[in-house]
Amino acid sequence: MASSSSLTLSQAILSRPSIPRHGSSQQLHPASIPSFSGLKSISSSAAAAASLSRRRSAAVVRHPVIASAAVETLEKTTETELVEKSVNTIRFLSIDAVEKANSGHPGLPMGCAPMGHILYDEVMRYNPKNPYWFNRDRFVLSAGHGCMLQYALLHLAGYDSVQEDDLKNFRQWESRTPGHPENFETPGVEVTTGPLGQGIANAVGLALAEKHLAARYNKPDNEIVDHYTYVILGDGCQMEGISNEAASLAGHWGLGKLIAFYDDNHISIDGDTEIAFTESVDTRFEGLGWHIIWVKNGNTGYDEIRAAIKEAKSVTDKPTLIKVTTTIGFGSPNKANSYSVHGSALGAKEVEATRQNLGWPYEPFHVPEDVKSHWSRHTPEGAAFEAEWNAKFAEYEKKYPEESAELKSIITGALPAGWEKALPTYTPESPADATRNLSQTNLNALAKVLPGLIGGSADLASSNMTLLKMFGDFQKNTPEERNVRFGVREHGMGAICNGIAHHSPGFIPYCATFFVFTDYMRASMRISALSEAGVIYVMTHDSIGLGEDGPTHQPIEHLASFRAMPNILMFRPADGNETAGAYKVAVLNRKRPSVLALSRQKLPQLSGTSIEGVEKGGYTISDNSSGNKPDVILIGTGSELEIAAKAADELRKEGKAVRVVSFVSWELFDEQSAEYKESVLPAAVTARVSIEAGSTFGWGKIVGSSGKSIGIDRFGASAPAGKIYKEFGITAEAVAAAAKELI
Amino acid sequence: MASSSSLTLSQAILSRPSIPRHGSSQQLHPASIPSFSGLKSISSSAAAAASLSRRRSAAVVRHPVIASAAVETLEKTTETELVEKSVNTIRFLSIDAVEKANSGHPGLPMGCAPMGHILYDEVMRYNPKNPYWFNRDRFVLSAGHGCMLQYALLHLAGYDSVQEDDLKNFRQWESRTPGHPENFETPGVEVTTGPLGQGIANAVGLALAEKHLAARYNKPDNEIVDHYTYVILGDGCQMEGISNEAASLAGHWGLGKLIAFYDDNHISIDGDTEIAFTESVDTRFEGLGWHIIWVKNGNTGYDEIRAAIKEAKSVTDKPTLIKVTTTIGFGSPNKANSYSVHGSALGAKEVEATRQNLGWPYEPFHVPEDVKSHWSRHTPEGAAFEAEWNAKFAEYEKKYPEESAELKSIITGALPAGWEKALPTYTPESPADATRNLSQTNLNALAKVLPGLIGGSADLASSNMTLLKMFGDFQKNTPEERNVRFGVREHGMGAICNGIAHHSPGFIPYCATFFVFTDYMRASMRISALSEAGVIYVMTHDSIGLGEDGPTHQPIEHLASFRAMPNILMFRPADGNETAGAYKVAVLNRKRPSVLALSRQKLPQLSGTSIEGVEKGGYTISDNSSGNKPDVILIGTGSELEIAAKAADELRKEGKAVRVVSFVSWELFDEQSAEYKESVLPAAVTARVSIEAGSTFGWGKIVGSSGKSIGIDRFGASAPAGKIYKEFGITAEAVAAAAKELI
Repeated sequence: MASSSSLTLSQAILSRPSIPRHGSSQQLHPASIPSFSGLKSISSSAAAAASLSRRRSAAVVRHPVIASAAVETLEKTTETELVEKSVNTIRFLSIDAVEKANSGHPGLPMGCAPMGHILYDEVMRYNPKNPYWFNRDRFVLSAGHGCMLQYALLHLAGYDSVQEDDLKNFRQWESRTPGHPENFETPGVEVTTGPLGQGIANAVGLALAEKHLAARYNKPDNEIVDHYTYVILGDGCQMEGISNEAASLAGHWGLGKLIAFYDDNHISIDGDTEIAFTESVDTRFEGLGWHIIWVKNGNTGYDEIRAAIKEAKSVTDKPTLIKVTTTIGFGSPNKANSYSVHGSALGAKEVEATRQNLGWPYEPFHVPEDVKSHWSRHTPEGAAFEAEWNAKFAEYEKKYPEESAELKSIITGALPAGWEKALPTYTPESPADATRNLSQTNLNALAKVLPGLIGGSADLASSNMTLLKMFGDFQKNTPEERNVRFGVREHGMGAICNGIAHHSPGFIPYCATFFVFTDYMRASMRISALSEAGVIYVMTHDSIGLGEDGPTHQPIEHLASFRAMPNILMFRPADGNETAGAYKVAVLNRKRPSVLALSRQKLPQLSGTSIEGVEKGGYTISDNSSGNKPDVILIGTGSELEIAAKAADELRKEGKAVRVVSFVSWELFDEQSAEYKESVLPAAVTARVSIEAGSTFGWGKIVGSSGKSIGIDRFGASAPAGKIYKEFGITAEAVAAAAKELI
Repeated sequence: MASSSSLTLSQAILSRPSIPRHGSSQQLHPASIPSFSGLKSISSSAAAAASLSRRRSAAVVRHPVIASAAVETLEKTTETELVEKSVNTIRFLSIDAVEKANSGHPGLPMGCAPMGHILYDEVMRYNPKNPYWFNRDRFVLSAGHGCMLQYALLHLAGYDSVQEDDLKNFRQWESRTPGHPENFETPGVEVTTGPLGQGIANAVGLALAEKHLAARYNKPDNEIVDHYTYVILGDGCQMEGISNEAASLAGHWGLGKLIAFYDDNHISIDGDTEIAFTESVDTRFEGLGWHIIWVKNGNTGYDEIRAAIKEAKSVTDKPTLIKVTTTIGFGSPNKANSYSVHGSALGAKEVEATRQNLGWPYEPFHVPEDVKSHWSRHTPEGAAFEAEWNAKFAEYEKKYPEESAELKSIITGALPAGWEKALPTYTPESPADATRNLSQTNLNALAKVLPGLIGGSADLASSNMTLLKMFGDFQKNTPEERNVRFGVREHGMGAICNGIAHHSPGFIPYCATFFVFTDYMRASMRISALSEAGVIYVMTHDSIGLGEDGPTHQPIEHLASFRAMPNILMFRPADGNETAGAYKVAVLNRKRPSVLALSRQKLPQLSGTSIEGVEKGGYTISDNSSGNKPDVILIGTGSELEIAAKAADELRKEGKAVRVVSFVSWELFDEQSAEYKESVLPAAVTARVSIEAGSTFGWGKIVGSSGKSIGIDRFGASAPAGKIYKEFGITAEAVAAAAKELI
């Protein structure tokens, strides 16, 4: 794996760019290496580009043709030549794929190829023929636009998912090499990235998962869980708030096996980072409790990169940020170190110039035989890693049958038989309660039977009611526990849960905040949905029913906004049975996230609600009509189902035939058969009234052109909840009156 | 204003809490002051609470009854006694209001009363009788839950908006003292806070606005723009990613007149910040380029607070973070320094104990006469500030008529006469173009006539097409320019624009990213809508039409999600005329934000589109029927309006009477008269087909129960745009086929 150098590795540390320690990098290597081997300016435009970046100008030195004599004083071994050839293979596979697609981002792969090579060829443990081998090291490309880097690496490493034809189909319809890394398209890709900052937060989740499982299941004689999480992030990721949230937690939790490479190339889409990003990232990460290493020459400083990784591994109580200064588009004589190489194909002429510059005589998509042969060892090596681990697990299973059964369930995703019996049920006589409290009952019941259930709240545990009473807090020194304290970091929380979910199929991460603050984490929730991460979002205080906190805290449009999102289940349970039903469906849906909108206020246990009903999304809870021909159908969700039921009581007293329907999950109802739908909402009955304390947007489809929707199409207000309900007309009287107009 | 001490103020700096410099605080004051005057533990539970916080345990010393002898060695002047009385007035007004409402957050006001007092009584320049006086210092309570602090201060300062009855109606229906600060409810409140982290980002926007206007309009002989922006933020704000984004920009821009007080009380809702927030905030802010001062005794260290503000003002090239260590719920013997005092009323018994503890003999809501009299000077003082400034402006106006006309327009919000003539118009013969490019034409045309137009993109200026070509970049040393480079910080960008909008009515801030990344900034966009900030959101790459970047970058549910949000205009213009129309409405709507969804791809200039049509939200662009009875109505938006028009051409060839309707803004259409609506969508015509490259969610109401909606109810895909359109069935053929089924 890494070199066997016995040097004092802390000498490579450089936490402040303003105090370069040239001595340290010299001590790291037997021969003197220039502190930065960038690109020599061989044209006036490249010179202009280089001088743009004031912070780097002093470092831009040396010869452009890396393959010949870029590193002056280091005597090259055959091995180093091969490494450079492999690195250039990665560069040109990326260049060629982007060129063929005439679309994509060549700049990052060209700059990050050296660290990519070292990670996949020298450092990481994985089995290319089984991308899902449990104990593999995880890699996340947080700067997802540079996905050709990862595709090239997966290709070289022998993953079946990325073959030559896949590279040639980069960014094409139904290819396995889409425009950004997508775990659901490409085995070997762990998570879905592209939206900046998500990946580093996913990586925090992956590293949390490893630390948790290791603490729970490792034994002194058998460390069955033991892998690293690597991530590459760029300037864009660093600017996003989500990355600071996640990095703060990673530091707090002391995730020592998280190693992040910061591709410090000083270029973002709008140009030099000077125009918008002049903070000291090093100092910030120091404040966040990370260990920081600076690799000053990310373009050719292979030994520096190796030494940094070794040092990072030696620091076990902190995550490490390896700042790797690179040249975006390294090797392109006229476009390197400029934004023009970030997100567009180089163009035929510049590709040719780059081939000349890097001494690359091959056809597009060609992998030289010696490079191919060098990488071919990963197939047998990976198989051996897995076989070795399997043997270890067999021993573990023998010696620790209980633990191994649990761990197996987390590894495979197979839910323990009969788990759903743990779900509580209620009768109308059961005491009224807030669905947030009922949610806690469910969570605590499920925690006993689902070993992969883990989660927490964004500093609202006692309001969201998410504490698992039988467990302590997941913390730096108690990582075996299952209550995660996310702090007020909703966006990071969602993305961390995505990482946990994608670590192993049996993880069931849940996270919580007030429903209105899904606005803070919507980007990570969308990635749950897109990347098929079955996260459970426990979202309390789901309407004006929260009262005095007022409109900043009262969701209005949020139900509609999630109903419109693909592949996510939006639940608004009305009582205990419906809350249990929502949890049942949520647990079963491991490839589809669920959002549970829960009340702050007490709600009665209604007659007619059921877990089975919830599974159908919409169902009749009471009906005094016959022949599927009620006079009117009243449709409610959550806290307003009670109001619909009350209105029905009134109308029935007046002799009307009234059906009350709970519409707890629109998505599930959509999936039912036409017959079932007709049995709940017969086409002939157009007298329909919906009531929901939220936007009426979208209800038109349910109640039809003749129906009426009672809801709230304005922002809320600060006052006691009952007062707001009354003033906003969310009342049984309003429902009854609307119904009478339609009958 | 502040004390006249001539001490070297940098001695008060303490950037690292781990290296306390006791010497420095002694040098700041003539007499020795204990480094921290906290609360003595007078009950076992308070002792337990105090010991909870490991980081502070050494500092918790001294006597609980502040009014008697808490500060041992400092000889008290009458003035200091009065200050303490005023501070306790603030505390008890807060306690009493929360108690009466039995709802609210007493902890922060009790802890932050000293800094609040000093700001409003000693430091800030404002006119209570004209809360909108242009040159006032701005104050933002980013920790908005502590709003009783601000209400108490506004009350004491003489603002008519917060009278005794308002305090007594805290958190009640239609009161001017809602549960979180809302600028649209309470004159004197600058912005709407509560969702954590928004306020500090708003404050960055306010400070940006000041720096920009000062650079543009100040003259050597007349500094007509000259105020500070103060903000109080808590641990919760600090944990949110948005605050890091905004703080990074504030440091980058060198906003020297931004002074932030970090209420460092170590308590968040879930308990001690130890459980989730152990980063060094000081070090992080150092990395972000801020000046940092630590006030170790925020509870009684009045001189320390004063000195810190003076020092902050002396640092003109950096924003300052004053970390003020306080005790949450200071004065409450049994609840101080615990989460229990954060968000609930103290309860009658503890209120009484606190009265005893702080020596407060008064009835609830009582303001002692000497305190009242002391504060009464702010009314004449404020009037004098404004009068003085008015005189200065009169001089300015005489000497600099052009500049003063512009500035006046920004101050008053009166748009220059005839501005709308700058809007471009198009004919079907005008060249096809992407609406993002047409948007840039509009922005550049408007920048010439609207002095308050200022904005930029989150590192996508060349993709969003947002550069104002006649201006340079707003930067630290060129703040008079109008292109703002936000970096990849969407959430911060939105909130900064809210701050700019609320600085002066004539500011028209715009900001940009890809439409899908509204998910990153939705919380700030919602606050634009709620707080009536007329920000223009320029959102390009608005559908699968962006092609190869794939599903992470392709919005699907986003149109629906904004159509469901109250008080925001969602536009999806189809061509040049519609883009101009969207800008016209957006500019006119100064109290309602607008979102423009714009295409990456070229679109033809359509026949029948118009600015006037856009103003109605939905309108007919072509029709070959008569008597308001078309066979079918085809409804499209944006890039799909062309497809609807093509389908109409086909159907008309087959002899059908077809109306094509552009539904560019649902909200505006909703506001039209019933007659107008009937003229566009006659109730009798139920054959309606909608087409939009996004979720069909919500279209049910427009097309009705018999209509059909062609859209995309799944995530997108990575491929060339044309291919995706075809594979997803977003085609003229599909529209024509659907229409034929209905006719």
